Amino acid sequence: MTKEELIHQIRIKRSFLCIGLDTDINKIPSHLLELDDPVFEFNKQIIDATKDLCVAYKPNIAFYESMGVSGWNSLQKTLDYISKDIFTIADAKRGDIGNTSNMYARTFFENMNFDSVTIAPYMGEDSISPFLKFKDKWAIILALTSNKGGLDFQKIEDKNGKPLFEQVLVTSKSWGTDRNMMYVVGATRSEQLSKIRKIIPNHFLLVPGVGVQGGSLQHVSKYGMNDDCGLLVNSSRGIIYRSSDIDFAEKARESAEKLQHQMDILLSEKGI
Amino acid sequence: MTKEELIHQIRIKRSFLCIGLDTDINKIPSHLLELDDPVFEFNKQIIDATKDLCVAYKPNIAFYESMGVSGWNSLQKTLDYISKDIFTIADAKRGDIGNTSNMYARTFFENMNFDSVTIAPYMGEDSISPFLKFKDKWAIILALTSNKGGLDFQKIEDKNGKPLFEQVLVTSKSWGTDRNMMYVVGATRSEQLSKIRKIIPNHFLLVPGVGVQGGSLQHVSKYGMNDDCGLLVNSSRGIIYRSSDIDFAEKARESAEKLQHQMDILLSEKGI
Repeated sequence: MTKEELIHQIRIKRSFLCIGLDTDINKIPSHLLELDDPVFEFNKQIIDATKDLCVAYKPNIAFYESMGVSGWNSLQKTLDYISKDIFTIADAKRGDIGNTSNMYARTFFENMNFDSVTIAPYMGEDSISPFLKFKDKWAIILALTSNKGGLDFQKIEDKNGKPLFEQVLVTSKSWGTDRNMMYVVGATRSEQLSKIRKIIPNHFLLVPGVGVQGGSLQHVSKYGMNDDCGLLVNSSRGIIYRSSDIDFAEKARESAEKLQHQMDILLSEKGI
Repeated sequence: MTKEELIHQIRIKRSFLCIGLDTDINKIPSHLLELDDPVFEFNKQIIDATKDLCVAYKPNIAFYESMGVSGWNSLQKTLDYISKDIFTIADAKRGDIGNTSNMYARTFFENMNFDSVTIAPYMGEDSISPFLKFKDKWAIILALTSNKGGLDFQKIEDKNGKPLFEQVLVTSKSWGTDRNMMYVVGATRSEQLSKIRKIIPNHFLLVPGVGVQGGSLQHVSKYGMNDDCGLLVNSSRGIIYRSSDIDFAEKARESAEKLQHQMDILLSEKGI
């Protein structure tokens, strides 16, 4: 998907919501377990119930990989089921030396047809550049993550007082463009967003951590939104696990709708 | 596998060689392609030809994942085929927030029965600690990698002149012990090994980059070996792709034997 197409979807849907399909067989409603492929069936019903409210879906690959072959099948079926006007993110946090990263890129972009993959930057340029060679595909680089351990290394400052995550932004932005790279910035770190926007004014940010992890949609939007919106705000558990009963998809829609309404207002306030 | 068992294998085999099973369907001898599972057949013949010369096998997961379901099947068959007295490394470079890293740990430790997984440290403690909760299993943390991009961030110095990879060592070593954690240090960075050994005298190091990438076994041993050996030196392409003909396994054995002979001498020189 191109940047223009993504922005267009945000404008017409009045939403910059990404829904995390972190589908855990141990957490889905028990009535689904009798079916052939409970994970896909869960995802299908979540997608049916929310596809007009969000602009992206983000399956975290760990949940599928942990189920072996059946998990990969559920993932591929889920991806095939998502309409092409919705942005898809393989939340895989991959990254290896060049020829190996190229293998990962082919897996997610060619074999599975994801629009984007999340990548850890620790191994530097040749671990990321192979993901930038695919037309209309995106590398989403971890910058400042929302988890507790995110502070262990990402905020270490160099001699000039610049934290590691800023160096990741400054250095990596020259490897690609705002049309094939995005960055992960956790909603729990929204106080850093103004500074981040000075370094990368035009890149899209993928923002996890709103909801269960405690981040605020208002803060994220206030400090992170640019004239194109420039945000994909993710919610996973706060949407997909609202109910463990037969009404799970309905409850998921309720939560997604609430976020979409707030996003509509925030977009309007920004004149988008 | 416990640390004692690994050291015992190194002593009796007179080897600290790890063979990287980076098996690429486009690079294996064409006569294998007629078989049901060419990737497993290639690995099986490599293992048969080298299992007395090495103490570890390291499949890079990208190569299997890129083949989808058939790749995962080949990987599982390969792992089941490796004798339990040989250490196995899932070179996956995973790492995610706590509950998700736990999924990855279960995948590789429980479902597939690997002894160890490589992990990127960017997301900090809660991305690594879930891998440390499994008995006799190991987390192998990226510290200083052998690729060109390894210098982009890993050598950035803080206010006290301490580069990032040293901070990763200093901080992370308290998360586990030298009985459930190892570190990746590229052979192309052997000038750093003395300093690294001062920080982590007792941990095993997984050292890629000998051979095709240009690292020297002698330098690595001189600066990195401790009284338990403490090294697993990996070679992938330099062993498994020596010939693209019917003699590929024989040629692989030749290369492995050459390295094992050198390792025998280096171990003896150290009194091991």
